[in-house]
Amino acid sequence: MLFSQETIVALATPPGQGAIGVIRLSGNNAISITQKIFKGKNLELQPSHTAHFGKIVDGNQVIDEVLVTIFRTPKSYTGEDTVEISCHGSSYILQQVLYLCTQHGALPAKPGEFTQRAFLNGKMDLAQAESVADVIASQTASAHHAAMYGLRGGFSHDLQEIRDELIKFSALIELELDFSEEDVEFADRTKFYELIEGAKAKIQSLIDSFKYGNVIKNGIKVAIVGRPNAGKSTLLNALLNDERAIVSDIAGTTRDTIEETLNINGIIFRLIDTAGIHNHSTDTIENIGIARSKKAIEAADMVIVLIAQELPKSLELTGSLPDTYPNVDSTIGSSLKNAKEIFDQTEKALLVVNKNDLLGDDERVLITQEFPNVLYIAAKKNKGIHELKQMLYNRAMNDVHTTEGAIVTNARHQAALKETLQSLMDIEAGMNNHLSGDLLSLDIRRCLHFLGAITGQITTEDKLDYIFSKFCIGK
Amino acid sequence: MLFSQETIVALATPPGQGAIGVIRLSGNNAISITQKIFKGKNLELQPSHTAHFGKIVDGNQVIDEVLVTIFRTPKSYTGEDTVEISCHGSSYILQQVLYLCTQHGALPAKPGEFTQRAFLNGKMDLAQAESVADVIASQTASAHHAAMYGLRGGFSHDLQEIRDELIKFSALIELELDFSEEDVEFADRTKFYELIEGAKAKIQSLIDSFKYGNVIKNGIKVAIVGRPNAGKSTLLNALLNDERAIVSDIAGTTRDTIEETLNINGIIFRLIDTAGIHNHSTDTIENIGIARSKKAIEAADMVIVLIAQELPKSLELTGSLPDTYPNVDSTIGSSLKNAKEIFDQTEKALLVVNKNDLLGDDERVLITQEFPNVLYIAAKKNKGIHELKQMLYNRAMNDVHTTEGAIVTNARHQAALKETLQSLMDIEAGMNNHLSGDLLSLDIRRCLHFLGAITGQITTEDKLDYIFSKFCIGK
Repeated sequence: MLFSQETIVALATPPGQGAIGVIRLSGNNAISITQKIFKGKNLELQPSHTAHFGKIVDGNQVIDEVLVTIFRTPKSYTGEDTVEISCHGSSYILQQVLYLCTQHGALPAKPGEFTQRAFLNGKMDLAQAESVADVIASQTASAHHAAMYGLRGGFSHDLQEIRDELIKFSALIELELDFSEEDVEFADRTKFYELIEGAKAKIQSLIDSFKYGNVIKNGIKVAIVGRPNAGKSTLLNALLNDERAIVSDIAGTTRDTIEETLNINGIIFRLIDTAGIHNHSTDTIENIGIARSKKAIEAADMVIVLIAQELPKSLELTGSLPDTYPNVDSTIGSSLKNAKEIFDQTEKALLVVNKNDLLGDDERVLITQEFPNVLYIAAKKNKGIHELKQMLYNRAMNDVHTTEGAIVTNARHQAALKETLQSLMDIEAGMNNHLSGDLLSLDIRRCLHFLGAITGQITTEDKLDYIFSKFCIGK
Repeated sequence: MLFSQETIVALATPPGQGAIGVIRLSGNNAISITQKIFKGKNLELQPSHTAHFGKIVDGNQVIDEVLVTIFRTPKSYTGEDTVEISCHGSSYILQQVLYLCTQHGALPAKPGEFTQRAFLNGKMDLAQAESVADVIASQTASAHHAAMYGLRGGFSHDLQEIRDELIKFSALIELELDFSEEDVEFADRTKFYELIEGAKAKIQSLIDSFKYGNVIKNGIKVAIVGRPNAGKSTLLNALLNDERAIVSDIAGTTRDTIEETLNINGIIFRLIDTAGIHNHSTDTIENIGIARSKKAIEAADMVIVLIAQELPKSLELTGSLPDTYPNVDSTIGSSLKNAKEIFDQTEKALLVVNKNDLLGDDERVLITQEFPNVLYIAAKKNKGIHELKQMLYNRAMNDVHTTEGAIVTNARHQAALKETLQSLMDIEAGMNNHLSGDLLSLDIRRCLHFLGAITGQITTEDKLDYIFSKFCIGK
């Protein structure tokens, strides 16, 4: 057996306060462990798919009044005996119940371990199992559609057909080897050419779908960089403003990294608020802080370089502009210079000029000469925001091939599909070169290997652990 | 009927991403509405307390693969037909399923509406129903213990006993009225005195428990006020540092109001980070910003006034202290003056002096003269933090009566108990004044009213709506 026979336990619902929270156990002892902390009916005598009211107790102390639902092997998500304990949604109670389960022999589940067991018990193939995480993470209709397609078998069926044909052909070729002295050909070479051509086209179209699949699955990471008073926060608020209803704050590990998500035409844009990064650097106002933003730029799919005509801090405070102040126009020039440095560094940058009303025509000419694709906005007045959203969307969908059919959203599948395609071309080249049956057979086996890796027919324990480690705990 | 016969629907698990999310329906049509969007067995034919695998569909489109559990009236939480749909925990899917349910006739549940129905259907009394919200909100062992005690009937039983005795006595007195011309006494006055005395003692002890109940249920709100560079954030971090594991950030409606919770000996302290308020006021460094902090002070149960010896901003930047700089010692003096203003304004203030190592002995003498209970700390060096925690805890538990028995945690109960006590005293006074039976009977009825209001035997629709509106949706 590849996997542990231990009974595992985890919280299955999101952390936080709610009406109910569900704790899930799976494994041979799922029911007996629950029975040890349950006061009510004898759960071990109850049939599968039944729910039972009772109390979770720690000795004499009642932890909660709960509803326990029992699923018996093989009719459960994992294929093993499974118990779901539906508690009151208090984090204190859920912690206590989890603790009690581990005290009575359950192990805390690793991320994705429930689904890993479902795969290992043959409840789903690997590509389906991977879709489970995608289904959970889906935030838009398009991402959900693609993930559900995968969960329900997706292109596994197409791959299986190709695989079956290849196996059949491979068997015939190997049969020929047994009769090699008689120079017979069991395997119809013309038909095989057709098979390879069809498979290549199918695989290529799946590979092409990945660019779109990746966008709908992961969204587009957009870093907004610029000097502190270029108006980054104002821009962020303007972008989010009319989207508040469907926007949620995702707090990172520290307060300084907060992502805001923006849904433009069904595509998620993750706006990285670099404002936090600059909180402590107001003293270095003369410095665009490229070093600090460099990491954000590298991690982003797109970079909005925001510049604006700025008044020196001291003038902003007094609110009046002394006649003697020199070079007050020069800030846009130095910002442009900084912008150019970023554009030299990455192709992902967009130049956006804020506070459009502070600019003179001369300056606009100067900017547009350098950056023909520049967008002028006035974030505070909500001007140009719609255009910026359109620009972000167009950039994201630029040379992305949207498709109604199968969409590959998983980078691992994409890599295996590319290797499959390469090995199909190797087979074809071998046939063109009249390669001997035994060598051709080796190429076919390599191709079968890559195909099998997608659905999990061929895999290693390490690989499985890696795949499921990206899941959330409790699934 | 007091309540709607409509079928209601809500998300029962916390919002956010998780392995599973549960949607709950309750009402006459709960099963038939689910059947309309479910592809699998015919749910209407299934017995109570059974779970069924299938798909939630919108026409031909599969929204999710789910597990549906059915509970038939009266054996459900609400007492009505109830369905729980266990979906993949994607907010997109959950929204879609909720939407589909409403499309097919379910109404979005109001906060607490499931529990309100449970109460109205006689599944629990009002005090028990109110405990449900407390159970969910409980974050510590003591809060959980008190809430579970309430959920399991709590002091309802004691109150019921008092109520029964009063009703019995009231009936006897009213019987006397029928025989008023014969001057008989069915009701034993001596026994009744004893009853009233016992009831008074019981009610008084419940009233006394509220101070502790309130602390364990709601925690202690602590505002930290002081100038920006007194070290508020450093103090906050120092306080939270060794507690990280059990601390969670509760993001408020805006980013500026973030509360951190700190568990000291099982009591939750809600530290209000006024740092956000001061973010934009670094320019007004010479001003402690009492106006800004005023609101925070008013809302808090305790106020930490944090002061420190400060170096002027310009000196901090250069790091050296010119010999010619005048009055460098005076900052602590002006901070002290500000602190006194806060102490004049509220009795909830504690003076804490940070950066203890920057102080001279003279200054410490000066401070201690004015504020004998001052605590000296050095937050950056983690000195005095343990002492501060002890000080916070002692303050919170000051003249709080901890008890092992029944604890009142609900302000509504507390108010009704006080009115009950007052009416018991009115009855007693009436007896002392040899009040006539009919007037005495009126006083007893008033007392019964207040007692009944706690468990919900006597209540109004408005009051119920108000009580349950404080619940989370889905419970």
